[in-house]
Amino acid sequence: MLSSAEGFEYTPTEGLKAGLPTPAVINPHELNARTAETYDVIVIGAGYAGLITARDLTSQGRKVLLIEGRDRIGGRTWTSYTDGHAYEMGGTWIHWHQPHLWTEVTRYGLNNQIKDSLEMYPGSAPQSTYTGGSRKDWSLAEITAMQEKSAATFLAIDGKHPTEWLPYPHNPGYNRADYVKYDRMSVQDRLDQLDGVLSEEEMAFTKANLGALAGIDFAQISLFDIVQRWLLCGTTQEEYMNHMARYKLKCGQTGLARCIFDDACSTGKLSYSFSNPLKAINSSDPRRATVTCADGRMFSARQVVCTIPLTVLRTVGFFPELPPLKAEAIAKAKSNPIRKLHVQVEGKQWKSWAGAKFAEEELVMVMGESHSPSGKDTNLVAFHDGANIGDPRIKARELVKYFEGLHPDMKVKRFVFADYIGSPFSNGGWCVFQPDYMSKYLEALQEPVGNVKFASGDYSDGWRGFIDGAIEGGIIAARAVERDLRSPPRNPLTRSSRSSL
Amino acid sequence: MLSSAEGFEYTPTEGLKAGLPTPAVINPHELNARTAETYDVIVIGAGYAGLITARDLTSQGRKVLLIEGRDRIGGRTWTSYTDGHAYEMGGTWIHWHQPHLWTEVTRYGLNNQIKDSLEMYPGSAPQSTYTGGSRKDWSLAEITAMQEKSAATFLAIDGKHPTEWLPYPHNPGYNRADYVKYDRMSVQDRLDQLDGVLSEEEMAFTKANLGALAGIDFAQISLFDIVQRWLLCGTTQEEYMNHMARYKLKCGQTGLARCIFDDACSTGKLSYSFSNPLKAINSSDPRRATVTCADGRMFSARQVVCTIPLTVLRTVGFFPELPPLKAEAIAKAKSNPIRKLHVQVEGKQWKSWAGAKFAEEELVMVMGESHSPSGKDTNLVAFHDGANIGDPRIKARELVKYFEGLHPDMKVKRFVFADYIGSPFSNGGWCVFQPDYMSKYLEALQEPVGNVKFASGDYSDGWRGFIDGAIEGGIIAARAVERDLRSPPRNPLTRSSRSSL
Repeated sequence: MLSSAEGFEYTPTEGLKAGLPTPAVINPHELNARTAETYDVIVIGAGYAGLITARDLTSQGRKVLLIEGRDRIGGRTWTSYTDGHAYEMGGTWIHWHQPHLWTEVTRYGLNNQIKDSLEMYPGSAPQSTYTGGSRKDWSLAEITAMQEKSAATFLAIDGKHPTEWLPYPHNPGYNRADYVKYDRMSVQDRLDQLDGVLSEEEMAFTKANLGALAGIDFAQISLFDIVQRWLLCGTTQEEYMNHMARYKLKCGQTGLARCIFDDACSTGKLSYSFSNPLKAINSSDPRRATVTCADGRMFSARQVVCTIPLTVLRTVGFFPELPPLKAEAIAKAKSNPIRKLHVQVEGKQWKSWAGAKFAEEELVMVMGESHSPSGKDTNLVAFHDGANIGDPRIKARELVKYFEGLHPDMKVKRFVFADYIGSPFSNGGWCVFQPDYMSKYLEALQEPVGNVKFASGDYSDGWRGFIDGAIEGGIIAARAVERDLRSPPRNPLTRSSRSSL
Repeated sequence: MLSSAEGFEYTPTEGLKAGLPTPAVINPHELNARTAETYDVIVIGAGYAGLITARDLTSQGRKVLLIEGRDRIGGRTWTSYTDGHAYEMGGTWIHWHQPHLWTEVTRYGLNNQIKDSLEMYPGSAPQSTYTGGSRKDWSLAEITAMQEKSAATFLAIDGKHPTEWLPYPHNPGYNRADYVKYDRMSVQDRLDQLDGVLSEEEMAFTKANLGALAGIDFAQISLFDIVQRWLLCGTTQEEYMNHMARYKLKCGQTGLARCIFDDACSTGKLSYSFSNPLKAINSSDPRRATVTCADGRMFSARQVVCTIPLTVLRTVGFFPELPPLKAEAIAKAKSNPIRKLHVQVEGKQWKSWAGAKFAEEELVMVMGESHSPSGKDTNLVAFHDGANIGDPRIKARELVKYFEGLHPDMKVKRFVFADYIGSPFSNGGWCVFQPDYMSKYLEALQEPVGNVKFASGDYSDGWRGFIDGAIEGGIIAARAVERDLRSPPRNPLTRSSRSSL
């Protein structure tokens, strides 16, 4: 198996190794990428949004050039096979309530590939929380009750369940007044209302839970954005966990991503260029957009679909300049500082263990995910704020101590992780919006600009920050492109409504 | 607006009128249907399974001939505009947890078209149940508690929640042993276990609830099939109702079906023939299948997709004969005797009213769905067993009396309904399986036979009997066809696994 230049493995004995084996790597990295040709469509980015766009358009007979900065498919979702285990380096968990994703599961016959990563292991250590500097262990019933209460209390905003003001979670703007109202509020505003309502432990758990989504600067997280995610997951903490962190694909995320990529390849209509970062998009000519790559090559197409992550868009030159609201949205985009870290620890007893710590600006949510291939050890998944316990590339030894400090029996054998925060192709984890951002900019971010369409899970209507949202964006972009290829817009700055297809 | 030959309107003053106006009618009924041509694909049936197959394949550049017995698109789902109101004549309610359907909602930009048909109307009459010959009215809190208890008790089979043995509701065969065990059990077997556990009222409500799904012959309904539907809906009575009978499309089901049909037409690759019943499919030549229509015309294609409802397949001649297990499944298919009836009643007070009656082989589930366009009356939707209160075409006057007998204030103004039971194109409502049927035949029903593929919501993996299941079948069939068009099977009887695409 080939290795991606991305990703790291650290063991206390062998130290840090860069690069991880994955079937996501595309080799050779280029196929029929011709500067002299005018493609029907150039798709920028080979994450799910880009793969779906390329698949939909090639299957319709369109000549597509896919350009990707990385050496692999999948964007912030890829599977590395390290030490015999399938490590999901980014987006991992799926659910049949994620409609666009599940439709792909059906298309590629993968509905028999679902696996429960929260399956209870009877010999597991009890779950732990950390408050006031000390660990407390919980029975499953106790912690479940505490979690349910915390979640229900947090969500009872203005005494109402959010389904009252956001009944259709895939349509955020359905009720504009409450959209603006609760988007203006921050998660911190809501936590302030619960001061004295939740116990110290409940508050710490709530903060750890929320922090794992978007970081610990709660004043910089929109309440609406968080609540919309909750509603998409159902209305209880249990359903939230079932949707967010339970079901995986046995074939790995890269298994699904390869189905889509291979499908596009099989049409004979796909050209591609990997390891080829983008520099600029010029759409001043309505008949032919041109993209310039970092190596200086220029490629042309009648239409361009840009699936670059929101926080990376500011590094791309757009000619002509983007409309003011879209440009402002890009300038104000904030990166998510949450890191995902795989921690292999000695012993089987951590399979159903989980720990939540929020204290003095310190955040960690960690949970057992699987036994190691040897059957002797456990793979944990941890989410922590990039600022608090440090960059695992630099502070690996401190991090080993940190995790071993969570429980006297814990012994770290290995870290496996990707660096989305430091990567120029992602500049942070999945997207979560700050207050006032979504209601002001979401539509502008989705809006095409002449022959350039935009698609990303960072700014989809439904499962923003999830694979499902990326696929949603890809479906809509492919459709908008197909419409314009059949009857091109007259003016490069003509905007076309997404819903009038 | 054109009228379909299907559907009926009855008013006490004007009597019965056949035929209803609907944008689902296709006129002229034929386009480029040529007996001399060999199409890439013939798709039989213009319900959702057929429309999706035709759309997917024409968008991939395949020449498709769509043949439909009715004069309209939509199969058992269509919208009639009668007296200013959009009556859904069959499949109506949708939910964003129906993944394949929601993906189409996204594709056509309809996520702003969702409407709540259970929205509470404060001036409504209280809900009613009928036990022991008398009506009882309930407060919302009382009836909700009764419903939740009845559902939870029914589902606690062998003391376990069904998610324990059917954790992935889109993969019925995941746990083969329990699949066979609970598929062998009938709903009656389960009701017998609850004799004395549920009160008379709770039992009557449970029976009305179950009977509205599949009829009152509970010994002829598979427990597994019913439970799988429950799990797809979530795990509570409230979520069940939210998924089964709450959210509609403002543009009507025909609004969505037309998006798909028009999309296929816009490729320029779709030919069609409506009002053209099918007689036989001959697939003895692996290079060219031939279908014979009732009018004697024969059409040819490299591949055929048959989306005819399960209970109608027995009227089609297959040459060569179908494999024994598939033939047996078709021979044993049972039709669902449940009728859906729209009842317009005087007054606004019925909007949030509902009634459930199960007594002496008598079943009705009726609920307020909307106010009439005048704002003065209420449109109710009723489900009743075809055998108990009679065919509304013949016994309309008795039915008026029946509904007026449910409440002293009730006055019937109009019935609007389709006759799926008497129609040769459906031979019953949506499909629900009898005991032992699903575990024995589901895979065989889905299996392609050489260049003939089969797709229907009647035998999908997930939402069987729903629009979502039909779309699931269409996606899989289109993909299987596309694979075979690229590399045709050598033998007409070669079976190809659905999951090895």
